[in-house]
Amino acid sequence: MGAKDRTRDFMKQAIELARRNVNGSNGGPFGAVVVKDGKVIAEGNNQVTSLQDPTAHAEVQAIRKACQALGTFDLSGCEIYSSCEPCPMCLGAIYWARPARVYFGATRQDAARAGFDDDLIYSEINVAPERRKIPMKQIRLDETDSVFSAWNSKEDKIRY
Amino acid sequence: MGAKDRTRDFMKQAIELARRNVNGSNGGPFGAVVVKDGKVIAEGNNQVTSLQDPTAHAEVQAIRKACQALGTFDLSGCEIYSSCEPCPMCLGAIYWARPARVYFGATRQDAARAGFDDDLIYSEINVAPERRKIPMKQIRLDETDSVFSAWNSKEDKIRY
Repeated sequence: MGAKDRTRDFMKQAIELARRNVNGSNGGPFGAVVVKDGKVIAEGNNQVTSLQDPTAHAEVQAIRKACQALGTFDLSGCEIYSSCEPCPMCLGAIYWARPARVYFGATRQDAARAGFDDDLIYSEINVAPERRKIPMKQIRLDETDSVFSAWNSKEDKIRY
Repeated sequence: MGAKDRTRDFMKQAIELARRNVNGSNGGPFGAVVVKDGKVIAEGNNQVTSLQDPTAHAEVQAIRKACQALGTFDLSGCEIYSSCEPCPMCLGAIYWARPARVYFGATRQDAARAGFDDDLIYSEINVAPERRKIPMKQIRLDETDSVFSAWNSKEDKIRY
């Protein structure tokens, strides 16, 4: 089987997880898998409403499970297949996990047409913090900077 | 005590969580609290390296704990205080949780100077998916669209 066929198969597996969510009551219609060395090492499906966890998107769940499986906080060399373009939260999670590559199916606009805020959140990122729909305001105290300087001097820190 | 003083106190509590992380070995120097009706209902500190979970940022942990405490996936009416500007992952998590307002201490540039990728990830969002440092490619299959149409027709779905 060629590389292109395998890519389609992994994507189909992510979509199948999304489809099961339509039939069940875990959360939104999204699925994702993490692949390493040509094998699926973790599956994730959206569990926002069933776990009462707004961060339990398919990609986040798959990344967390893959890290548990591998015993690391770093997914270097892995690929992530998601049934839909990652929202900003999941995109951030992907950058922190550092896989080699991501494949996605539907787009943020498709998600918006199904009632999800992915596209809205992408738009909000480029709005000044205080003018966002959720206003965000900086409060800099004397203590604010001292934490980073202490971190910079910490000798036994684990970088990520 | 005035509203401004209380805001400073909640921010100090978030920074204190960050400071404890500098002294301990949980993860990066970041802390956050969720406040409802003038009381802290959840604390979060970065636990990326100790939990081997790249999504375990302070804001994400605080949001998860607050939702568990309230038994909901929605933080309407709450405020979030974070020792540092939320990264794109945490910003996305905040939009999905829908608090009323966010206060943050340090900036993404401060985080970058301490060796964290927050600012880099913000830059990557505006790069075309295939040209990102982690390349992201769309693969649209016949099944891709059918999941959202099935979701749109689902009568007992729980929206979030």
